[in-house]
Amino acid sequence: MLKHLFQPASVAVVGASRHPKKLGHIILRNLIRGGYQGRIYPVNPEAQRILNLKCYPAITALPDKVDLAIFSISAPLVLGAIQEATRKDIPAGIIITAGFKETGPEGARLEKDIRALTRKHRLTLLGPNCIGLINTASHLNATFSITPKMPRPGNIAFFSQSGALSMGVLDWAIKEQIGLSKLVSLGNKIDIDEVSLLEYLARDNETRVILGYLEGIERGAEFMKIAARISRHKPILLVKGGTTERGARAVSSHTGSLAGREVAYQAAFHQSGVIRVNSLPELFDLAQAFIRTKSMQGLNLAIVTNSGGPAVLATDSIEKSCYLKMATFASHTIERLRANFPRGAAIYNPIDVIADAPEERYRFALKTVLSDKNVDGVLVIYTPATRELPARIARACIDIARHSAKPVFSTFLGGELVQVGTRLLKEADLPNYNSPDRAVAAFEVLYQHYQWSHRRREALRHFKVNKQAVARIIQDALVTQQLSIGNEAGLRILAAYGINTPQLRRAHNQTEAVALARKIGFPVVLKINSPDILHKTEVNGVRLDIRNQSEVVEAFNEMVMTARARMSQAEIKGVTIQPMVTGGKEVIIGMVRDLQFGPMIMFGLGGIYVEALKDVAFRVAPLFPSDAEAMVREIQGYRILAGMRGEAPSDLDTLRDTILKVAQLALDFPEVMELDINPFRVFEKGRGGIALDARISLKGEDWV
Amino acid sequence: MLKHLFQPASVAVVGASRHPKKLGHIILRNLIRGGYQGRIYPVNPEAQRILNLKCYPAITALPDKVDLAIFSISAPLVLGAIQEATRKDIPAGIIITAGFKETGPEGARLEKDIRALTRKHRLTLLGPNCIGLINTASHLNATFSITPKMPRPGNIAFFSQSGALSMGVLDWAIKEQIGLSKLVSLGNKIDIDEVSLLEYLARDNETRVILGYLEGIERGAEFMKIAARISRHKPILLVKGGTTERGARAVSSHTGSLAGREVAYQAAFHQSGVIRVNSLPELFDLAQAFIRTKSMQGLNLAIVTNSGGPAVLATDSIEKSCYLKMATFASHTIERLRANFPRGAAIYNPIDVIADAPEERYRFALKTVLSDKNVDGVLVIYTPATRELPARIARACIDIARHSAKPVFSTFLGGELVQVGTRLLKEADLPNYNSPDRAVAAFEVLYQHYQWSHRRREALRHFKVNKQAVARIIQDALVTQQLSIGNEAGLRILAAYGINTPQLRRAHNQTEAVALARKIGFPVVLKINSPDILHKTEVNGVRLDIRNQSEVVEAFNEMVMTARARMSQAEIKGVTIQPMVTGGKEVIIGMVRDLQFGPMIMFGLGGIYVEALKDVAFRVAPLFPSDAEAMVREIQGYRILAGMRGEAPSDLDTLRDTILKVAQLALDFPEVMELDINPFRVFEKGRGGIALDARISLKGEDWV
Repeated sequence: MLKHLFQPASVAVVGASRHPKKLGHIILRNLIRGGYQGRIYPVNPEAQRILNLKCYPAITALPDKVDLAIFSISAPLVLGAIQEATRKDIPAGIIITAGFKETGPEGARLEKDIRALTRKHRLTLLGPNCIGLINTASHLNATFSITPKMPRPGNIAFFSQSGALSMGVLDWAIKEQIGLSKLVSLGNKIDIDEVSLLEYLARDNETRVILGYLEGIERGAEFMKIAARISRHKPILLVKGGTTERGARAVSSHTGSLAGREVAYQAAFHQSGVIRVNSLPELFDLAQAFIRTKSMQGLNLAIVTNSGGPAVLATDSIEKSCYLKMATFASHTIERLRANFPRGAAIYNPIDVIADAPEERYRFALKTVLSDKNVDGVLVIYTPATRELPARIARACIDIARHSAKPVFSTFLGGELVQVGTRLLKEADLPNYNSPDRAVAAFEVLYQHYQWSHRRREALRHFKVNKQAVARIIQDALVTQQLSIGNEAGLRILAAYGINTPQLRRAHNQTEAVALARKIGFPVVLKINSPDILHKTEVNGVRLDIRNQSEVVEAFNEMVMTARARMSQAEIKGVTIQPMVTGGKEVIIGMVRDLQFGPMIMFGLGGIYVEALKDVAFRVAPLFPSDAEAMVREIQGYRILAGMRGEAPSDLDTLRDTILKVAQLALDFPEVMELDINPFRVFEKGRGGIALDARISLKGEDWV
Repeated sequence: MLKHLFQPASVAVVGASRHPKKLGHIILRNLIRGGYQGRIYPVNPEAQRILNLKCYPAITALPDKVDLAIFSISAPLVLGAIQEATRKDIPAGIIITAGFKETGPEGARLEKDIRALTRKHRLTLLGPNCIGLINTASHLNATFSITPKMPRPGNIAFFSQSGALSMGVLDWAIKEQIGLSKLVSLGNKIDIDEVSLLEYLARDNETRVILGYLEGIERGAEFMKIAARISRHKPILLVKGGTTERGARAVSSHTGSLAGREVAYQAAFHQSGVIRVNSLPELFDLAQAFIRTKSMQGLNLAIVTNSGGPAVLATDSIEKSCYLKMATFASHTIERLRANFPRGAAIYNPIDVIADAPEERYRFALKTVLSDKNVDGVLVIYTPATRELPARIARACIDIARHSAKPVFSTFLGGELVQVGTRLLKEADLPNYNSPDRAVAAFEVLYQHYQWSHRRREALRHFKVNKQAVARIIQDALVTQQLSIGNEAGLRILAAYGINTPQLRRAHNQTEAVALARKIGFPVVLKINSPDILHKTEVNGVRLDIRNQSEVVEAFNEMVMTARARMSQAEIKGVTIQPMVTGGKEVIIGMVRDLQFGPMIMFGLGGIYVEALKDVAFRVAPLFPSDAEAMVREIQGYRILAGMRGEAPSDLDTLRDTILKVAQLALDFPEVMELDINPFRVFEKGRGGIALDARISLKGEDWV
């Protein structure tokens, strides 16, 4: 119950102190000065009164029921204090104290004990190692912020895994008059983490937009599920900090080498509607766009400006945007503007009302374009012209925006000469940006969020597959400690999941090879078959386009000899022979399992380009059909698949289905850690495709 | 002589007015209130005195020699007034008046007349259609800014093609206390443009960094030459506005279709050391880095912080940067830090001095890392800890930075609690950024500028070529109105410039084709030869890997038939036969002539990828050898050429030389408008390469 944390009827400060520099003093002071209306109980065995409040010697000595206990005592004492709190049936606590898992194994052990206790007694705990929280609606400042000032009440919730960042943001929000609903420092997330906090904020009426700073997400799948649900209604914007280095474990697949923590977070955020932002200033900049909750229902922007240069910059940003477009006005809009505007004014988009345009002309332009069906949002630009105009034009924007269902943002360029206007805009929560490109970025996320909230509901597609056959192959491999499944068995697994694969035969000597090649029909492909050789091409273990018997003999012998020479330890099980498939285009489809988020499915162009250009798309399974389609479309090489220069398009349906089947396989078999279909050859539309090689890694003992 | 413009001994305001709302009044007021010390002469036939100054009825009636005349009279009167000014030997003028070429052909004609007059009398003119200029060192405010306030004197010069932007920037700079040396509104650039202004600012002692907003550059080659010279010493940072649409003229080459205005500016800025910036706030943000002119002589950054989160964000930015790295401290640095720091402090990079670290610990950390050879710059991060610290830590930064040759920037996160510190930093011109990523971006440009200023001097390489042979082929083509030169003659042109080309023969019938193929040796390639067929593959006009006589006969007949059927108008000159070249990698090398900047040379990977992925590099000729090398290295597909997965690297020297030869050809023959070598096949290192197809377009009447 996070209610006790955010709206407690009474608060105890365990470790309250008389010394003004101690956290236990500052917290008490902030509670009082913040205007909290509930009862406050300082707990300190050595004091009678602190800050004019009666002190209690111990938690157990508290006279009434307490909703929230804030612990500011040294780390070794915390466990005992919490035990006391549970005895007193206190439902929620904040551990301010640092010195836990961030200091080493001893601290981590302490955390584990506290967590066990918390779970047992269903205690809701924030922290440890955090600065606390603020709830402006309850006038609750339960932090040790140096300043006792409260931020302006508003509709933005901010949470942070870094206490220092929360402190910086709080101080900045106070100065900039940013309206906050909640500010939460998560600390070491012993109990409350981003998942449980999101659940609470989803139902919080004061919060319209959720901002956060995270360095890591432990419950990846839960996070995605809840974030996807919430973000339909309340936008979630996150800054993700943390280095991008890949896991220490070596990966054996192409997919694995292209994945990494960064890619996993990117995919997880994308699929759960979380808008990822690069910096804190940008985070709050963009959040402004959502406070008045006007949605932007289309991608067409109009600009109303009194000057050329800034409008050029705004137009540039819109044209560079992947989401937005410059609106093309309906003819009646242009006619109305032409009839009412002086010569020299521009009536096409951007509308230039001319430098010293009076308020009325701005109003007229704004109303006219807002009533145009081809316009989904308007950016008003003002550069200093007269002393009176900024306030007037700001009021015009506020009036008109209030009565319009479409978003109106502004850029008032300047300093002292425009600040009367910008102040009015801020008070009215009308987003104003100091640079046109930032305004355009805000429209962009607004439209992105609209698209996300209104995306069509989709069902997961379930293919009929032969799960048992796969279970058997995997079982066999595990029994023989064969953690890497190569081409032959790999393709059998794919075939069991309804993926088209070639006829494969294994030859143990050159005579067999010739006979099999003739049976399959020339041209054929020969591949070395060894569970120990992962990269066949590196030992010349793949020979394409073999056209006759003598070429088969030559290739067979050379291949086996080279493999033996270069990898003398490898067990060579023979040579696989398969028909030579020509035509179509090579792609790669793969999977690697992420520890936090689960199976990451990859799609990219095949061949040397997949590695050189890293032109691949990732998503976390389970995948909706639209996810798989988006993966194919979002790679840069998509144009090659869509059909360039008069070429027929590739069979995109087959690509989508194959991606979905790989996702299904990954979810069905948690022991499959990595998978590469490389290459998958896709033919023209309607002609399907075929998996030509596969490699699968199973969970070994080096996996966590 | 721009001196008269920026440091006039006396100024006349032509069109001075008594009405406080008129520009001619505001300009006069600004001159007086700005503190200008020279004589000021209002010119107005209808007034005796304005703002307490004696008025003159006409320019010719002025009593003394006047250095600068500011014209604020209606457009049709400007020409006459300038005539008067020349009679009075006034050396410089500012035309504030709008209503010239921006309004249509009539205004453009007026401008042309003024320009002619200006040239004849060597008058220096700023504008028209501009807000004027400010020179803080001379207390000269020759603008019609609403506010008469002057910006703080400083070392940043800002110029702008948009008057409104200058106005916005001026107002903002006053409020933010940004130190400016000059502010110049270029207007329609009738005389003074960015080139002449840069020349002046290069020698201006007050200016240490040059910022500008441009929408177009007319004198491209001159701009590049002067910018390249100046930017070695004074950094030039520009925002380029203006839509990115390509020229209206149809292009016929791959290179042409991949080029465009945007690409030309990008290449021109890159080659002249101009740092391109995306927005105005960023422009001034980055300019801070150069004011104290500390250079950053290496790429290794250290971070000194009192909190984790912001340091994580800074580290992320550094690791994402293409230029910078996190410094690895020398062992003695680590030892000194370990010996002096408390437990819990982090002594590796980033150095975490712990939340409430006293000033001394910051000082010690800062001095220690600055004395480490492995450190080239330091970012100091501070998040609110106590009320006293911000000022102390700011002073520590200022002291230490003053005595260090290495740059020290800071990020003080917060609002009211840190502003004592940030104010001190601003007064000391020590760059402070409100977000760590912006600080890192500033270090990035500082290091980029260091690299540019210290790049090795290089000579242009001149290849010995057969210019006459090329002149003859081009002459022949022009005489026959053949503006497109195809494969055969195209390859002869390349051969004359020392580029390796295959033996080519032309067959007029199937018997000749067979004979020639036998002479060349199988396998061969057949290509349709027609000046009218630009895209041979689209009429099946290329057949590769032809292995015997019967295949020659079949290919010859089919090719000619198909071409005749699909392009009945095309004159078919036969079929070209050339040896089939295998091995190596396909690239494309091309050229397209830009109207402003001249020949744009392109390099990219060949085949379908060049179009699908747009993975190409452009530079403006003339090219230094290092430019050509950089082009090869900067494409994403470079790894493929460098040798992946044990492959031998390609012959990069041959690629460089071929690019340089194309550049030389483009400079030698201005009538060559576009050129594609597609494909050029490059072999392994030391084995050269070969141009397999070429297409050249000559200047026709549709070219300007």
